[in-house]
Amino acid sequence: MTTNESNTALGGRLETPSELAAGLLGGNRRALSRLISWSENDHKGFPEALNAFYPHTGRAWRIGITGPPGAGKSTLVNELALELRRQTEPQLDVGILAVDPSSPFTGGALLGDRIRMDELTADPGVYIRSMASRKSHGGMARAGVDACDVMDAFGIDRILIETVGVGQAEYDVMAACDTVIVVMCPGAGDGIQAMKAGILEVADVLVVNKSDLPGAERLLDDLTEAVHVRDRRATADGGWDVPVVPASAGRGQGAKEVLAAVVRHRARLEELGLEGVRNQKRTAQVRRIVEETIDKRLFARTEMGADIAAQLATGQNAYAVAEALLAQLGPGFDRPSNPSESPSSK
Amino acid sequence: MTTNESNTALGGRLETPSELAAGLLGGNRRALSRLISWSENDHKGFPEALNAFYPHTGRAWRIGITGPPGAGKSTLVNELALELRRQTEPQLDVGILAVDPSSPFTGGALLGDRIRMDELTADPGVYIRSMASRKSHGGMARAGVDACDVMDAFGIDRILIETVGVGQAEYDVMAACDTVIVVMCPGAGDGIQAMKAGILEVADVLVVNKSDLPGAERLLDDLTEAVHVRDRRATADGGWDVPVVPASAGRGQGAKEVLAAVVRHRARLEELGLEGVRNQKRTAQVRRIVEETIDKRLFARTEMGADIAAQLATGQNAYAVAEALLAQLGPGFDRPSNPSESPSSK
Repeated sequence: MTTNESNTALGGRLETPSELAAGLLGGNRRALSRLISWSENDHKGFPEALNAFYPHTGRAWRIGITGPPGAGKSTLVNELALELRRQTEPQLDVGILAVDPSSPFTGGALLGDRIRMDELTADPGVYIRSMASRKSHGGMARAGVDACDVMDAFGIDRILIETVGVGQAEYDVMAACDTVIVVMCPGAGDGIQAMKAGILEVADVLVVNKSDLPGAERLLDDLTEAVHVRDRRATADGGWDVPVVPASAGRGQGAKEVLAAVVRHRARLEELGLEGVRNQKRTAQVRRIVEETIDKRLFARTEMGADIAAQLATGQNAYAVAEALLAQLGPGFDRPSNPSESPSSK
Repeated sequence: MTTNESNTALGGRLETPSELAAGLLGGNRRALSRLISWSENDHKGFPEALNAFYPHTGRAWRIGITGPPGAGKSTLVNELALELRRQTEPQLDVGILAVDPSSPFTGGALLGDRIRMDELTADPGVYIRSMASRKSHGGMARAGVDACDVMDAFGIDRILIETVGVGQAEYDVMAACDTVIVVMCPGAGDGIQAMKAGILEVADVLVVNKSDLPGAERLLDDLTEAVHVRDRRATADGGWDVPVVPASAGRGQGAKEVLAAVVRHRARLEELGLEGVRNQKRTAQVRRIVEETIDKRLFARTEMGADIAAQLATGQNAYAVAEALLAQLGPGFDRPSNPSESPSSK
C-alpha cells in the first residue's frame, strides 16, 4: 500500500505534526502508530505534535507490569487485557505497550502464547505496540512515556505497559506509571532475591503468579512481610498498603483480583491528589529530554569518539578531556565543586 | 584514632590532592582508599590528584567478571585471586573491586563464603574494595573506572572487577575492562536466556561454572555455538575467538584455565595495539564525566524537582518545560533536529 492510498483510504493527510495530532484526536490508528514511531526515532516534529494533543491526555490509567524473566508477565498482561475488555459499563479500550524485545506481544513468543494472544490481536478495542530496546536507556524511557501520552490522547482508557527485568530504563518506565504491578513466581530463586529490594520500592501491587506451584505460599508470606516492613517506614507520607495478590494467569485465575487492587490504588492516588502525583512523576521525563538533547549536541558528530580517543592518546586523562569539552558550553559548566568538602577535608 | 595520629603513624600528610597522589605513588594504602572514596563522592580534588598520578597508570590488567546472580562469580573471583597470588615469577599484587552490594566481598556473604575469603583478606598483597551501587548509573561506572586507575597507579598488577547482572552501569564497568569474563552456570534457565544477547557482546572469556551439575555439557555446547556465530560476524575487525571454559570454582577447579585464557586474550590485544584499544574504551569515561557534570549543574538545586512540577502543573508538556531549561544553556542547545527527517517525511 503506498502512502497516498493509505492516506486517502483513512481519510486524511498524516504528514505534518498538526495533521498527525488532528488524526490522532480524530481516532486515526495510523496517526497513533506514526506518532509513537516519531517519538522513538526522535523525529523533530514530535514536540510540536505533542503540544497539539497534550491537552487531551490525562484520562488513561497507566498500569506498569514488571518482574523477572519467566514470572509470567505477558500471560498476566494478556489476562488483564481480556478481563478489562469483558467489562461493559463502560466499555474500555485497552492499549498494550511491550517495552521488551522478548515479549510474545512483540513476536518473541512460544506458539502457545501467540495463539492465546490472538483473541486480543483481533479485537478492534485493543491496540498492541512493542518498543525495541534502544541503546540509550534514557531514550527508551522517554519514548515509553511519550507512547503512553499518544495512546492516552487517542482515547485509550487503560494502558498496560510490560517491561522485563531490572534495568534502569525499565525502572524509569515503571516509575512513570500510575500503578505498578510487580509479578513474581515461586522457584525463581536467586534472581528474585536480587531484584527484591529494587522491586519493592516501585511496586504498588505485588502478584504471586503460578500460585499453584510449590513454594507459592512461602513467597506470598515473604513478600507480605517485606511489604509490611516497607510500609511502616513509608506511613508518614500517606503510605499505601501494597497488596500481595495470588494469581495463576496461565489458568485464567487472578486477573479480576489484580484489577480490583489497581482500582483501590487509583482511588488512593485520587484521594492524595492525582494531578500532583502525576506532575511529580513527570519531572523525570523533563530531565530525560534535557539530558538526551545535550548528549546529542555534544556527541552527535560521528568523529567525536575518534577525537576523544586522539586526545586521550596524547596522555591526557578522562577528566582533562572532559574539561575541554565542557568549556564549549560556557563558563558555568566547568566541573562542579562539592561545597561541603574542600580538598583539605577528610 | 584521630587524623593526626594516623597521618603521623603512616608517615605523611594525606589531605590535599598532591599529598594523596604522592602517598598513592609511594605505596600508602590509606591514600589508595581515600582516593577511591574521593571519586565515589565526587570530591572536587579528585581530578587534580588524577592529573598527578595518571602518568603512572597503564600497567595493571583489568579483568571484569560478570554474570547472573547465583552463577558463582564471587567464588570464581576468590579462586582467581588465590591462583594469581600463587604465581611467583613475578609475584603479582591483586586488587578486587566488587561493584555489587550483595557480593560476599562487601559483607553480603554467607558464612562459608566469608571463611573461604579470609585467606585473601589476610594477604598483604591483596587489596579488596567494594563500591556501593549509586543512584546514577553513569556515576557508578565512572567511579569504577577511577578506582581501577587508582589501584593501577598504586602498583597493583591484576585488578578483578566483579559486577552483578545485566544493568547498564554494570555493562559500562565491564566495557572499560581489558578482559571481560562472563560466568554462567547450568540450570539458571530464563535468566540466562534473557542475558545471553547482551552478555555475548561484552564477553572475552566465557566460563561455565558449576560444571559438575547436570546441564553443564549442554550449556557449554550452546555457548560455544553462540560464540561462533558471533565470531564469524566480527572476524572483519580482527575477531577474537571467545573461549568457553568449564570450571567448578567451589571445588577449586578451573581458575588456572580461566587465567590462561585471559593471558591469551591479553596477547591478542597487545598484537592489535593495546594503547589504541584502551583509548577507545576510555572515550566512554569522558562522556560519563561530561554528562554527570552537566546533570549536576542543571539539576543540583534541591528545589529543581518542585520547580519542574510547578511548570508541568500549568499544563505545559515535558518537552516544553525541557526547552525552557535548555534555553539556559545558550543558543546551541535547543532540541536538535534530525537532519535525515523533515516533519513532512514518512
